[in-house]
Amino acid sequence: MSEVKAYAAPKESADLKPLDIKRRAVTKDDVEIDIEYCGVCHSDIHTVQNDWGGSQYPVVPGHEIIGRVTSVGENVTNYKKGDLVGVGCMVDSCQTCDSCKEDLEQYCENGNTMTYNGEDKHLGGHTFGGYSEKIVVDTKFVLRIPENIDPKGAAPLLCAGITTWSPLAHWGVKKGDKVGVIGLGGLGHMGIKFAHALGAHTVMITTSPSKSEDAKKLGADEVLISKDDKEMEKHANSFDFLLNTVPVGHDTNPYIQLLKRDATMVLVGAIEPLDPIHGGGLVLKRKKVAGSLIGGIKETQEMLDFCGEHNITSDVEMIDMQDINKAFDRVKSSDVKYRFVIDMKSLKESK
Amino acid sequence: MSEVKAYAAPKESADLKPLDIKRRAVTKDDVEIDIEYCGVCHSDIHTVQNDWGGSQYPVVPGHEIIGRVTSVGENVTNYKKGDLVGVGCMVDSCQTCDSCKEDLEQYCENGNTMTYNGEDKHLGGHTFGGYSEKIVVDTKFVLRIPENIDPKGAAPLLCAGITTWSPLAHWGVKKGDKVGVIGLGGLGHMGIKFAHALGAHTVMITTSPSKSEDAKKLGADEVLISKDDKEMEKHANSFDFLLNTVPVGHDTNPYIQLLKRDATMVLVGAIEPLDPIHGGGLVLKRKKVAGSLIGGIKETQEMLDFCGEHNITSDVEMIDMQDINKAFDRVKSSDVKYRFVIDMKSLKESK
Repeated sequence: MSEVKAYAAPKESADLKPLDIKRRAVTKDDVEIDIEYCGVCHSDIHTVQNDWGGSQYPVVPGHEIIGRVTSVGENVTNYKKGDLVGVGCMVDSCQTCDSCKEDLEQYCENGNTMTYNGEDKHLGGHTFGGYSEKIVVDTKFVLRIPENIDPKGAAPLLCAGITTWSPLAHWGVKKGDKVGVIGLGGLGHMGIKFAHALGAHTVMITTSPSKSEDAKKLGADEVLISKDDKEMEKHANSFDFLLNTVPVGHDTNPYIQLLKRDATMVLVGAIEPLDPIHGGGLVLKRKKVAGSLIGGIKETQEMLDFCGEHNITSDVEMIDMQDINKAFDRVKSSDVKYRFVIDMKSLKESK
Repeated sequence: MSEVKAYAAPKESADLKPLDIKRRAVTKDDVEIDIEYCGVCHSDIHTVQNDWGGSQYPVVPGHEIIGRVTSVGENVTNYKKGDLVGVGCMVDSCQTCDSCKEDLEQYCENGNTMTYNGEDKHLGGHTFGGYSEKIVVDTKFVLRIPENIDPKGAAPLLCAGITTWSPLAHWGVKKGDKVGVIGLGGLGHMGIKFAHALGAHTVMITTSPSKSEDAKKLGADEVLISKDDKEMEKHANSFDFLLNTVPVGHDTNPYIQLLKRDATMVLVGAIEPLDPIHGGGLVLKRKKVAGSLIGGIKETQEMLDFCGEHNITSDVEMIDMQDINKAFDRVKSSDVKYRFVIDMKSLKESK
């Protein structure tokens, strides 16, 4: 067991502060990682604020972790000291249920262990995330980061990336499909990059005309302003797939109108009640609304390999650990393009 | 052109009354049918009351039509005089769009012609349904009724039957699947019969414990009372498929909880706004909510053939044409097991 520096919210609604936490000693299946970068996800804020209930304090957030291996257990053959690796939203799962057997640990039927605020089965208490110097993780939950991509921009791939990749892959988005990405934030900007790289005709759907230029730079072929009824009407019944990244409850009916017969809109952002959906909008053309949660470890590695091949990373703004509370405020007001990443050197070198 | 007896609502909210209507002369692709039975569908009432807007008066309802062929056009080779046939919700479609080419005329992209209150492309004005002595229909929209099943009970197969069959078939419900049918009315009782005949473990999901006995007689293996939170909890995340036949907006969240990962609930009844769906309920196990509308002609014939093989018909209460207004009132108060069917002899023999 070792003591490492971290940043934590000591209690609900409080600012994050320096805190020393314990990491377990490396067991035979573990990989010890020196954290270099950690992305800032809106879930970090929700957990700190206890928005979803069940938060345990102190909360050490962070599940977009990039670092270098410093040590491995005796059973670990796929990683060695010095390897560039990542850790996402999960650090363990039962490995025995149907979901785990199908490489869908995010849907583990016995409850997986989240990277922070999960039950720590080694030390007791709850797990601590990546806003810290080091982490020790079972090798099955460690991802390999392609050495050719910028590791800073790779951090958000571990959550924002896989959250948008998984539905595009699961629903089989392919070259020539007309794909809409609703909402341009941390998730949406990754959705555009992926849909574009998969060869889809990619349409950014946003309420804000001001986002058009950025959307096109990110890879959107078209921008559809959802407040423009005439434009929305023109695109009615034309989309093969919609990726809805809006992070709050909203009226999804105008988007459902955009779907082709038999097409699906997948929610990845709104983990709260949606405005009433009109049954007729689904019935009349056999349309579908679904949800999707992050992604399994196997598909996360596939996504990372795809990013290596296509040189895809997240657009990030680097911050020091000490600036985290300011960054949280800016995330809350959507004032970031498109993801904050903490340079963990700032934590390590602090007194 | 011929003049035939019918029953019609002369204007919104008025009772149905006798009326003479015109039927076109048999063209080369047409089949003329002497109507023997016509089912009473809740849509008939919605159209008479103009609940969905766009009703044109007089409304002659009826799209669950059973009769015998009296005459066929020169191009018609698949039917001959005396054949037992049916007509459902559609009498024409464009035949050229992708949906029509895929045998999904119900989703015709250029707008199909509904059996009543559609645009009559032959005579002008709007189409008249099955509450009448005769109908003339393009042979492509005429169905063959197996001679071994009771033609009275076959009438509702043309709408209630195909509406529940189509999603079960499209989503591939099979032997051993755990299938829930929500709501026990005209649609629900067909859903149970079909799911049971397909070999699924069929669960009737209802708010009314009083419906348990009937549900089991219809083929349900189990009855789940949706108001019983403990029972609902026991069945959480266990259903492969849910067929939701509830005809009005309602809270679907408790049903979504019942779905397994990746499973779908299909709406076939509620063509109106649902209570707010919680995004988290979909996201956490990649669940899906979809809609489905009646069915194509090809799959309607498949359903009828299946009914012939398994001796499946609807449970019906026979009425005379003159009792239609009383029957409407009873449908509105769900006082029918499970579908009214009009014996058209009563119309023909009336003065």
